[in-house]
Amino acid sequence: MIYYQSCSSHLVHRIQQDQYLQNIVSPAKDVEGLCHTYRYNMYHNVRFLDPPTNAKKCIIPCTPLAIVKVLEHLHIYNPMLPYGGRLYGKTIAIVNRSEVVGRPLAALLANDGARVLSVDIGDVLEFHRGTGLQHRQHQVMETTLTADEALRQADVVITGVPSPNYKVDTSLLKDGVVAINFSSARNFNGDEVKKRAAMYVPSIGKVTVAMLQRNLLRLYAYQRADVESAKAKQA
Amino acid sequence: MIYYQSCSSHLVHRIQQDQYLQNIVSPAKDVEGLCHTYRYNMYHNVRFLDPPTNAKKCIIPCTPLAIVKVLEHLHIYNPMLPYGGRLYGKTIAIVNRSEVVGRPLAALLANDGARVLSVDIGDVLEFHRGTGLQHRQHQVMETTLTADEALRQADVVITGVPSPNYKVDTSLLKDGVVAINFSSARNFNGDEVKKRAAMYVPSIGKVTVAMLQRNLLRLYAYQRADVESAKAKQA
Repeated sequence: MIYYQSCSSHLVHRIQQDQYLQNIVSPAKDVEGLCHTYRYNMYHNVRFLDPPTNAKKCIIPCTPLAIVKVLEHLHIYNPMLPYGGRLYGKTIAIVNRSEVVGRPLAALLANDGARVLSVDIGDVLEFHRGTGLQHRQHQVMETTLTADEALRQADVVITGVPSPNYKVDTSLLKDGVVAINFSSARNFNGDEVKKRAAMYVPSIGKVTVAMLQRNLLRLYAYQRADVESAKAKQA
Repeated sequence: MIYYQSCSSHLVHRIQQDQYLQNIVSPAKDVEGLCHTYRYNMYHNVRFLDPPTNAKKCIIPCTPLAIVKVLEHLHIYNPMLPYGGRLYGKTIAIVNRSEVVGRPLAALLANDGARVLSVDIGDVLEFHRGTGLQHRQHQVMETTLTADEALRQADVVITGVPSPNYKVDTSLLKDGVVAINFSSARNFNGDEVKKRAAMYVPSIGKVTVAMLQRNLLRLYAYQRADVESAKAKQA
């Protein structure tokens, strides 16, 4: 994971190269889900590769997908609400806006109905489908919130700062918050946060690995289906 | 339901008479759950009549119990949290503080972990078990909040104002709020609130009737169990 602190020409080249490499991968083999097709579909809340049949779900990047699965498991997604809007009413702060996790995660959760406060070193952006989820996909808006204010408002706080020196100030968190860390560094003070959070997930690596395997199996199934349907046409 | 607007000597007598009549009912037959035993246990978060056996749950007043069941059905109670604290992290405003519904409901929901803002014509009280649910039962605290401020903070708003003239100002509600009305009058503007609430329950009367039947069947089962155990001792 790269932490973009400044923007030198070297860095610009590296970002371009990252994306170039991501796009070289065929969508039929892209277990990481970061090629242009999947990325475009994710940001535009397009959930299937083959509308209107809708037999093939789009591939979602592993780490954001793992966090979605963790949130589903913790019943933050409310199954009484219609599919695609089950985070409606939840405010979620994400401390990380990288292109591989933080930003796609913000888009995914906002598309599912949450009001997402995306906290970066410079500012706080809001990802949201608007009052009453009036928009079909999320919009991104600038805010005047500080990082502290964003944390104070959040029902769920998700951190991914790759530095052992960064710690969330526990006293800012809502009593009964849900705290999830996906950084390899512990971004929460574990002893403190356990006294204040309803649920605390210190790491999600194993779920990420499971999601990578899931994406692999899904793509394998898609390829098999294509082979079978080609055979059926020949026969 | 009585709406206590002023406190004349006539009213004082009536309140005393209400409670006198409630206490005349034997706990073995009190389907309404408002005699002293049940009331005391409810406020003190005592959930069983027969500790440590814990085979006989206390009887809970029908209307508050119906609202608890509605909240469970809507997944506001989070089943991933331990029993007795499944509303942890939720802020719930209750616009009604009557002795038969609003106050016992505030106590029940706070005992289950919620931060309850009890809104009355004169003030807003907070019912809460404290940061990290540190207390075994809820405490009641005075606040300086206005009714409007309480509504703005609430994840769930429960109304029970017995007047057709009272309407919650929809613009105060959180986008994605859960709105529940137990008054026979419609305290929400239905068309407006549907555009702003994740879930809206305009009335709960049928669930209340079901809970009355449940309490009746429960008391019947307790009596049968007592008869059987007396027989077993004689034999």
